[in-house]
Amino acid sequence: MEIELELPEYLRTWSEQVDALRKVGRIFWKRRWSLGTSSNYSVVVSRDPTQLLITASGKDKGQLARGDFVVVDQHGQPVQENQPKSSAETLLHCVAAENPEVGAVLHTHSVWSTVLSDRFAPQGGIRIEGYEMLKGLAGVTTHEQSTWLPIFENTQDIPSLAEKVRAAMQDPEQRLQHGYIIRRHGIYTWGRDLNEAFRQIEILEFLLECLARSAVLA
Amino acid sequence: MEIELELPEYLRTWSEQVDALRKVGRIFWKRRWSLGTSSNYSVVVSRDPTQLLITASGKDKGQLARGDFVVVDQHGQPVQENQPKSSAETLLHCVAAENPEVGAVLHTHSVWSTVLSDRFAPQGGIRIEGYEMLKGLAGVTTHEQSTWLPIFENTQDIPSLAEKVRAAMQDPEQRLQHGYIIRRHGIYTWGRDLNEAFRQIEILEFLLECLARSAVLA
Amino acid sequence: MEIELELPEYLRTWSEQVDALRKVGRIFWKRRWSLGTSSNYSVVVSRDPTQLLITASGKDKGQLARGDFVVVDQHGQPVQENQPKSSAETLLHCVAAENPEVGAVLHTHSVWSTVLSDRFAPQGGIRIEGYEMLKGLAGVTTHEQSTWLPIFENTQDIPSLAEKVRAAMQDPEQRLQHGYIIRRHGIYTWGRDLNEAFRQIEILEFLLECLARSAVLA
Amino acid sequence: MEIELELPEYLRTWSEQVDALRKVGRIFWKRRWSLGTSSNYSVVVSRDPTQLLITASGKDKGQLARGDFVVVDQHGQPVQENQPKSSAETLLHCVAAENPEVGAVLHTHSVWSTVLSDRFAPQGGIRIEGYEMLKGLAGVTTHEQSTWLPIFENTQDIPSLAEKVRAAMQDPEQRLQHGYIIRRHGIYTWGRDLNEAFRQIEILEFLLECLARSAVLA
Repeated sequence: MEIELELPEYLRTWSEQVDALRKVGRIFWKRRWSLGTSSNYSVVVSRDPTQLLITASGKDKGQLARGDFVVVDQHGQPVQENQPKSSAETLLHCVAAENPEVGAVLHTHSVWSTVLSDRFAPQGGIRIEGYEMLKGLAGVTTHEQSTWLPIFENTQDIPSLAEKVRAAMQDPEQRLQHGYIIRRHGIYTWGRDLNEAFRQIEILEFLLECLARSAVLA
Repeated sequence: MEIELELPEYLRTWSEQVDALRKVGRIFWKRRWSLGTSSNYSVVVSRDPTQLLITASGKDKGQLARGDFVVVDQHGQPVQENQPKSSAETLLHCVAAENPEVGAVLHTHSVWSTVLSDRFAPQGGIRIEGYEMLKGLAGVTTHEQSTWLPIFENTQDIPSLAEKVRAAMQDPEQRLQHGYIIRRHGIYTWGRDLNEAFRQIEILEFLLECLARSAVLA
Repeated sequence: MEIELELPEYLRTWSEQVDALRKVGRIFWKRRWSLGTSSNYSVVVSRDPTQLLITASGKDKGQLARGDFVVVDQHGQPVQENQPKSSAETLLHCVAAENPEVGAVLHTHSVWSTVLSDRFAPQGGIRIEGYEMLKGLAGVTTHEQSTWLPIFENTQDIPSLAEKVRAAMQDPEQRLQHGYIIRRHGIYTWGRDLNEAFRQIEILEFLLECLARSAVLA
Repeated sequence: MEIELELPEYLRTWSEQVDALRKVGRIFWKRRWSLGTSSNYSVVVSRDPTQLLITASGKDKGQLARGDFVVVDQHGQPVQENQPKSSAETLLHCVAAENPEVGAVLHTHSVWSTVLSDRFAPQGGIRIEGYEMLKGLAGVTTHEQSTWLPIFENTQDIPSLAEKVRAAMQDPEQRLQHGYIIRRHGIYTWGRDLNEAFRQIEILEFLLECLARSAVLA
């Protein structure tokens, strides 16, 4: 379980971002949001053309090596050869990054998002409202606002799921603004930078735990 | 996610207090009582006139920089220019510090206080009695005493909330002695110094968890 | 929140035991079994006459200083002047240490022991049986054995409680062997040495959590 | 609670494996999956003949010393004299290691596996399906696959239990592929190497927690 610290050639420019994502992985693993090889994290490292630095496929998130990352283009294709394989879910990061204000995307597998995804699947999503913590989400300035987290059925057909996510992000009626849940799978959120995305996942996880515990108490 | 360690000029005198509050933030973030940018902590750094050192607005509590603090007067106004903005809730710290025996005020956003605030809102507060842990609260010497935590509806109108809190602190019938809860928002408590306030929030959180888990078991 | 590291004169002989108990406090505080100033820990440091090294009254267990300890005799009286005050519950440690095979006594305040003490109070105690983890308790060699944890009503009259505990430890029918619970207060356990007592509290806490979660699931 | 760091002669060749298992013990203890002296971990250190490096009997898993290990043969017998005693459950590790693709076996005692073992005992096991996290288990490539964790009644007669496990591992109808649970006792899993076994227990624990919390919510 020794962690490889050497930085591969193709990541030379992104050394800081690599280490920031490794730190995120460590924290999320400790919180049990990224157990096993689950989860994927990315940061947008260039625009015009869009490029994302993203965790490679199948790596333990609690002990990410410096070489466990890939740089991909806006279609999720590696920008250079000889990189490790990126996750099939890379495309979902690319779809989130189509929004020019998104600089980082975080995907985790927590118990609460998994458990609540079943409970709220019949409603197609979870509306969270009335909590002060909502104010930590981008663009929310009062607890009277709400956020809508759509729930998508899980699938191994990521391109078709990416299409659904893209449509939901553009839905004028129930806008997917802060994140979404894949049923029995996990949560996706993002932010202008890694700090904002990190904060946002903390807040969404907190709110989901509140919903779950309130339901048990009621 | 590097933390700025330089101490700004206007905080030069309060270096120790700044570091103590940063440590509190780190501990509370680890306990998930201060996720995202939620929570505010303050210590009274002078009397006549009263001045409080308080966390600046919108900072991640798990990684407070040494410059993420403000010094305000008894009305919550900055005592000096060029400080970061303090939270809108600064006034609630000032109201608690009107009591000359209060030397530190802690406000956190925990799951249990949030969840129970809904459950007990119809009664206007939570009476906790019969637990040995109550003896850790200031002035309590036997488990047969009790404490009353009033619950206030959440609002973004902090001055009006501050008025209600002030009134409750002076209510001779049901005295707000150790802390209060803002509905779906969080808890406020205080102590003669930071150690006492810290201990008090630990105890209140413990007692709230006992109430919640007992309710689920029953 | 700096911790005083100097060892007072009267503890000079017990430096190792002091540090071991401080470490226990740190671990239990992190596990939320010893929040605030709750809990007391002791080790028997001499026999003939019996003397116990025990935590002083009112200290935060997560940050015990080296001077936060007292040496007391078999009646709980300080063996030397100028020591800090020991807890009123010192007598309960002495009663446990009347058993010549007891070398360390641990008392903690956990959520599960508190919550279950209410649930099982009508039965007078908790019988735990059928769990493999029981085998970690002293003298248990198969999961088919059981342990009986009596529950005593909480009181501030420690001498009278000490009498009841002494009687239960000698009760031939339902012997108090591994520990007991004080209602809405906490748990007491012990062992031949600190390691055994530590292990025993881990196991009892685990078993209590199993009972509580099983009850919620059922 | 000092940890002995010297490596005994008979473990000289397995220094790295010893330290890797000690690290696993530390992590599992922190997660409360290996409290007290519960749990056993092993790695296959040779084939032809099969030899396993396994934790010695009765050691605290949070503070394993370098000498708290034994090397045993395929029947669980020590390959050399003067080693500490290995656990009675050593045989269960040997049975798992009969599969030539197994390089490490982990056995833990968690709250969720214990609690769910009672709930699912009438069905003879737990079928887990439909969760994305299943894909972290060896050989699972879609959330539509499932895994079957048989539940065996607890016993102190390990040889007879070993026989039942062996039969279940060869059962063509409901193959025991990733692990099994002993009722009110704990879970066994394995992997090609220690990393894979570690990942697998993380995933199984996550899935069991999801099942338990879903049941409470429903």
